[in-house]
Amino acid sequence: MDAQLDRLKLDSNGLIPAIIQDHKSGEVLAMFWMNREAIEKTIATGKVHSYSRSRGRLALKGETSGHFEHVRAILTDCDKDALVIKVEQVGGACHEGYYSCFYNEYQTGSEEWKNVGKKIFDPGKVYHK
Amino acid sequence: MDAQLDRLKLDSNGLIPAIIQDHKSGEVLAMFWMNREAIEKTIATGKVHSYSRSRGRLALKGETSGHFEHVRAILTDCDKDALVIKVEQVGGACHEGYYSCFYNEYQTGSEEWKNVGKKIFDPGKVYHK
Repeated sequence: MDAQLDRLKLDSNGLIPAIIQDHKSGEVLAMFWMNREAIEKTIATGKVHSYSRSRGRLALKGETSGHFEHVRAILTDCDKDALVIKVEQVGGACHEGYYSCFYNEYQTGSEEWKNVGKKIFDPGKVYHK
Repeated sequence: MDAQLDRLKLDSNGLIPAIIQDHKSGEVLAMFWMNREAIEKTIATGKVHSYSRSRGRLALKGETSGHFEHVRAILTDCDKDALVIKVEQVGGACHEGYYSCFYNEYQTGSEEWKNVGKKIFDPGKVYHK
């Protein structure tokens, strides 16, 4: 029972988008989907949990990689249908080895998104031990 | 025809979430939904356009209020199913008078989200002339 969470507007699948943001730099690291249980677990443990739509279950971010996201603040918007979660990121947020998942930048007149990210870890070592 | 946009993964309704971020401070200002046409208009005009699910049509942010969002960069994530749009915000992003829509902060043990925003304009004057 959490009256604040009762006020959130989840979508028809019981989900809400959660924007994960570096609490110091403000960099947007990822966007996850959460259900009520994921939000509650995130609050209870202080570590970001998401609802994986592809796997149909809760996922603790960092469970395999050790790249946990420690919660510093949780905000919602005027409509209460989206979250911003400010975190201290361990390692990198992206399973492809980048600090942020948002490493592709649009380039006018180009055929391809430009990779503007910097790899900070080797996903092969982190995810396939 | 834009090969970069062809690579985006829109959802079953043809929509993709777009996180609007202040290009200087990194503050997250809003989350909008966009369809292909909204993305194309945003690129063509340099001003954020969203797809309003409630009104079922394209909306130019700032059309009524003058609070346009001038695009500085467009990024997508590893899965290409979300956007970050870095903008220069005129006025405030929130129709309730705040610079950012994310002005409610979760408070452990409280019944209510805490309003941590600062009103920067009077919505009554901006939206009901």
